[in-house]
Amino acid sequence: MSDSRRRRLDALRERLSAEKIDALLLTALPNIRYLTGFSGSSALLIATQADILFITDFRYEIQVAEEIGDFADIVIEPTSLWTGLWDRLPRLPSAEVVGFESAHLVHRDFQRLLSEGSRWQWRPQLGLVEDLRESKDEGEVALIAEAARIATSALARVVPMIHPGLSELEVAGILEKALRDEGSQEAPFPPIVASGPRAALPHARASNRIIERGDFVLLDFGAQFNGYCSDITRTLVVGAATDEQREIYDIVREANRIASSSVRAGMTGMAADTLARSYIERRGHGAEFGHSLGHGLGLEVHEAPRLARTAEAALKVGAVVTIEPGIYRAGWGGVRIEDDVHLSATGPTILTNFSRELLEVA
Amino acid sequence: MSDSRRRRLDALRERLSAEKIDALLLTALPNIRYLTGFSGSSALLIATQADILFITDFRYEIQVAEEIGDFADIVIEPTSLWTGLWDRLPRLPSAEVVGFESAHLVHRDFQRLLSEGSRWQWRPQLGLVEDLRESKDEGEVALIAEAARIATSALARVVPMIHPGLSELEVAGILEKALRDEGSQEAPFPPIVASGPRAALPHARASNRIIERGDFVLLDFGAQFNGYCSDITRTLVVGAATDEQREIYDIVREANRIASSSVRAGMTGMAADTLARSYIERRGHGAEFGHSLGHGLGLEVHEAPRLARTAEAALKVGAVVTIEPGIYRAGWGGVRIEDDVHLSATGPTILTNFSRELLEVA
Repeated sequence: MSDSRRRRLDALRERLSAEKIDALLLTALPNIRYLTGFSGSSALLIATQADILFITDFRYEIQVAEEIGDFADIVIEPTSLWTGLWDRLPRLPSAEVVGFESAHLVHRDFQRLLSEGSRWQWRPQLGLVEDLRESKDEGEVALIAEAARIATSALARVVPMIHPGLSELEVAGILEKALRDEGSQEAPFPPIVASGPRAALPHARASNRIIERGDFVLLDFGAQFNGYCSDITRTLVVGAATDEQREIYDIVREANRIASSSVRAGMTGMAADTLARSYIERRGHGAEFGHSLGHGLGLEVHEAPRLARTAEAALKVGAVVTIEPGIYRAGWGGVRIEDDVHLSATGPTILTNFSRELLEVA
Repeated sequence: MSDSRRRRLDALRERLSAEKIDALLLTALPNIRYLTGFSGSSALLIATQADILFITDFRYEIQVAEEIGDFADIVIEPTSLWTGLWDRLPRLPSAEVVGFESAHLVHRDFQRLLSEGSRWQWRPQLGLVEDLRESKDEGEVALIAEAARIATSALARVVPMIHPGLSELEVAGILEKALRDEGSQEAPFPPIVASGPRAALPHARASNRIIERGDFVLLDFGAQFNGYCSDITRTLVVGAATDEQREIYDIVREANRIASSSVRAGMTGMAADTLARSYIERRGHGAEFGHSLGHGLGLEVHEAPRLARTAEAALKVGAVVTIEPGIYRAGWGGVRIEDDVHLSATGPTILTNFSRELLEVA
């Protein structure tokens, strides 16, 4: 931990030099966690070439000592974190031109920089730390792999328990319990359990709809381990699949297989998206695949890079991305099959090891 | 629903007039949900005296038709919501001076207002819709009461299942399943399950710590029903309580009782906080009650008003607030007892009906 934190801080300091800023004010908690290990929900961080100043509130006094130790100067602020900032920032002599996170600072707090912080020169920055986070180190990949193991083990417990008569909410509860029993420390997002025609809604939540024989049941969920997320989708059929269900399923499965075996670091996000999309289009279902192929995941369940028709950036070595093609038809249902894939220098490694055969349950 | 939406929109329009703005751009999803009923995760809303324009992306096309219908002009935007805004805003002729939500617009998007939106005059606004949300109508109170019923019914299932040897994570899983079985549509926040010395951490999450005989187990969690949240905490003892555990518990229970029976609309948040705090101080534990007494809840689990030493605003008729005194001692443990209370014109009504006796389980 200590070594990786030091490496990350060094990499950030190189970026500060490249951007010609003396310091960076961090307000995004996942970025703060990446740099310091702090897992709480209230913090400001200032990094300069010489110093690292961490400000939180009294609720985290004990936790901060455990998680951060002497890696940063710690300020426990009894009132507002901003009070702590204006009190301590003048004591960092080298900080004159200070970057801030333009995508993670609300207008109200930006006004604080212009008023209480008017003696500094503020420079909006986009994605400085997010860029670093895109390439995962070995330790991070191991944590995502453990989150993936938790998710797939939970799924193995849940699949045999799905049957007609259960509501989607009840299935979500069974799944959430299995995730906890396998060691998930938090849900990266509320599990999606979408059955029958609701499987056609790419962002359905679980509802009180009762599962019926013949339904598709789409399960999209994740686990979290030491801050790192997994994200997996499987779609099964309750009872025997119809020919049409099987046909659609097989197209999505093949699109998933092609993309997750062919995706490579160095390729653009657009090229990765095309791997799956061109196959689905050739099979005549392009218009029914209405979302992007995937996204990066790590400390957040949606982070850089994007695998999408408009994503021109090249995928970095070390990224972990989802591959999640789908076909959706309003009123009928839908299929999505999603895996998490690590893009190592030598090729892709699938972290979510769970059958992609069409499962017929109950 | 339709009537309450109309009432809310009328109230907002009065606020626009009072603030001398022609329109308000909304970016906060709970505020958008309050005004329109939309429960998705991607939307912009513009309200003028004459029009209401709702912009979302293709994922929500079906959902928007169900939830919003013809209450607003709906734009399904294939690329960025902002593209839709700059395309449609010029067609709202009365909108020249436009407010935006200063606490809910990040700097990057604020820059869009200044560049692509430079032909409008932008005015930062704080809390326009949040103020309206503070007083709940009858329908909203009924939804919070249902979320409270779900939470207390789930707790009744879980308490008898807690025993030494379970991990906090396993208890969280049992609780999450019970919440789903009772009909919770989402967790307002990840349940806190904190046992033994971890009960001293006011913002602990569930961990892999194994529960032991003699432990306090603090459970702080909520349910959600049609968007509305509940939030409850109970602290129990595994095995027989010691005299010291019972003494601390009884002080917190009495502080909870005093505050939840005496809190009134019209009182300041500070005066409400004092109801519990002065009792805990008189009993000699003021320094161990390190957080505020409570907060409002509704579409968000933390919203206005605050019940805190620094809260000068008067509590409004119709607010629903938590009453959650606690005593925490590092290394030993802690007790918190939290209820949800509706402040009607005639006095407080407790919505979380669950025993406040010290429960000794297993």
